[in-house]
Amino acid sequence: MEQNEKIFKVKPHLTTHSLHPENQETPIHFLEEPITPSAKMYRRNHFPYPAITNQSYSLSITGFVRTPITLHYNQITSLPSRTVTSLVECSGNKRAYFEPKVFGDQWKDGAVNQGQWKGVPLSYLLTIAGITDRANEIVFQGADAGTKEGRHVHFERSLPLEKALAPHVIVAFEYNQQLIPPKHGFPYRLIVPGWYGMASVKWLRNIHVIDDSFTGPFQSDDYVYYPHKDDNLDSFPVTSNHVNSLIQQPIDRQILKPGRHDIFGLAWTGEGMVTAVEISLDNGVTWKKAALSENPKRYQWVKWSHPTVFEKNKEYAIKVRAFDSNGQSQPDQAFWNRKGYGYNEVTQIKVKTE
Amino acid sequence: MEQNEKIFKVKPHLTTHSLHPENQETPIHFLEEPITPSAKMYRRNHFPYPAITNQSYSLSITGFVRTPITLHYNQITSLPSRTVTSLVECSGNKRAYFEPKVFGDQWKDGAVNQGQWKGVPLSYLLTIAGITDRANEIVFQGADAGTKEGRHVHFERSLPLEKALAPHVIVAFEYNQQLIPPKHGFPYRLIVPGWYGMASVKWLRNIHVIDDSFTGPFQSDDYVYYPHKDDNLDSFPVTSNHVNSLIQQPIDRQILKPGRHDIFGLAWTGEGMVTAVEISLDNGVTWKKAALSENPKRYQWVKWSHPTVFEKNKEYAIKVRAFDSNGQSQPDQAFWNRKGYGYNEVTQIKVKTE
Repeated sequence: MEQNEKIFKVKPHLTTHSLHPENQETPIHFLEEPITPSAKMYRRNHFPYPAITNQSYSLSITGFVRTPITLHYNQITSLPSRTVTSLVECSGNKRAYFEPKVFGDQWKDGAVNQGQWKGVPLSYLLTIAGITDRANEIVFQGADAGTKEGRHVHFERSLPLEKALAPHVIVAFEYNQQLIPPKHGFPYRLIVPGWYGMASVKWLRNIHVIDDSFTGPFQSDDYVYYPHKDDNLDSFPVTSNHVNSLIQQPIDRQILKPGRHDIFGLAWTGEGMVTAVEISLDNGVTWKKAALSENPKRYQWVKWSHPTVFEKNKEYAIKVRAFDSNGQSQPDQAFWNRKGYGYNEVTQIKVKTE
Repeated sequence: MEQNEKIFKVKPHLTTHSLHPENQETPIHFLEEPITPSAKMYRRNHFPYPAITNQSYSLSITGFVRTPITLHYNQITSLPSRTVTSLVECSGNKRAYFEPKVFGDQWKDGAVNQGQWKGVPLSYLLTIAGITDRANEIVFQGADAGTKEGRHVHFERSLPLEKALAPHVIVAFEYNQQLIPPKHGFPYRLIVPGWYGMASVKWLRNIHVIDDSFTGPFQSDDYVYYPHKDDNLDSFPVTSNHVNSLIQQPIDRQILKPGRHDIFGLAWTGEGMVTAVEISLDNGVTWKKAALSENPKRYQWVKWSHPTVFEKNKEYAIKVRAFDSNGQSQPDQAFWNRKGYGYNEVTQIKVKTE
């Protein structure tokens, strides 16, 4: 029988959206751990993977600083560090659910991960270099590069000074007590808890302090909310995560046996804390509080569950909504935007029993 | 650089629908080979995997036969054999696309595979046993079993005598020159080219000749077209594959660079031959013939392609429809049925250029 168990071992797989560049989704419905294993992290790339060379281990800090510096691997890993458990969610997570549909990779629920990132606080590195009074934003450049709008560009993003100096923002060099996986930014990845994943720049190689506002294509073209289909009016940048949730089990449109099943999933928010998760089994007519597995922690998802007895031969329209300490909750209708960011409509599935 | 290539190797993965039982979909959009490798075959199960024991190697033929027999592995593999290249498509393939949506695993395009199956013609085995004049149907029992509607049952399906005796129906013991993979029926799988996959019984262990009509749950409850949501009127059984196609590239809602891209995919049918594949780039207003990579072969998919120059800043509503030698073609609207079988609506995606 042991041989049979090995032969027939089942495991969930990443869902492939594209291979060049690689974009694959976490099988979030089938993961039980609160910490996402490396192999199951969603992969979201704008360009081909950058080669890892000796140069990759150098991290430079330039621009409006008193002392421009280049730090090497053993220097960085010797500096004071902290470990931050944080989720990272792609701003395109749940894009597939927008109505009307939008273009771009059709991520479902699985462009979100959680893990333990260890690294040097960014504020510490900026203190070493000594940012000057003219500093306004910090620009982070990854080693990944390619052609965009006819120009050769690196993936680059900026943070306002206030967020950059926040204590939980780190230049990470470990994920879950291991080196950062090559596909997820080795050797260095900026981790910006509370903001969507585009801010957490992978393969970080330069930190550049500027005195104005950064306008690179991943800052002012992509990762911008465009509320209108045909023009760019009223646009504004994608920043912190919206309060959100997902139902891990059951699966949408699943046919269940009557009897007791646990409905469970995850809930999270950006800046703030999850305060409650509510569930409706009757398409939003009545709501109950779901049980939380622990006290919510800042920048982390919390598991919620709701044991439910399902009657025979019945359809269930299940809805879930999370609330946070900023008074936000998942809306009844998602904020539609042309590039499909930040979807957080009330989570809903239908199941039936036979 | 070679080390980098190894570190950053990308590959497509099965898409997980459920793990117990295991139901996972082929990443068909990312496979180039006409023959599906074992590891990339879709996995569709009704029950847990059956243990492989000494008993698994015995295949019995019983019922209305002159000589009930039990054949062993070295006997079966010594009999005259033939190799059949055939696709196997789950009747639930594309279920996710039904509108209104139906319940059950939400298969997209990837519940279809093609491979080389080697085995003994079923007609030869039935000749050895000698079916009697009273024979009407042949019932095939797999080793996989579990509880359904409160009863312990095996997966069992029947074929009418006429189809069972057709020369291409085989009891396979090899897939792509290898033993059949354990998850796909080892040691024996019935292969019924031209019929949806439920007919190709895995882990085959008994062939039972009956004089009436089989009414097991996978024959008369599942794998039946129910045209009405709330009653079973007008129902009829799922049998042969509908004429169908899929677009492998581009991907639905993909954002393309302007310029030339190949639109390509696969087309197939059940009993008959694909005669043409047409493509429309303007939502079905005008149609052109797509190029076929070879002369279509019975029971096999054919690759079609259409090199296309995409203009800048434009949306394309792409439609594809296959035609077959029985005068069938993909309909403008799928035949809706409650359990979601046989979806073959005109294949359609939208892409845009930037």
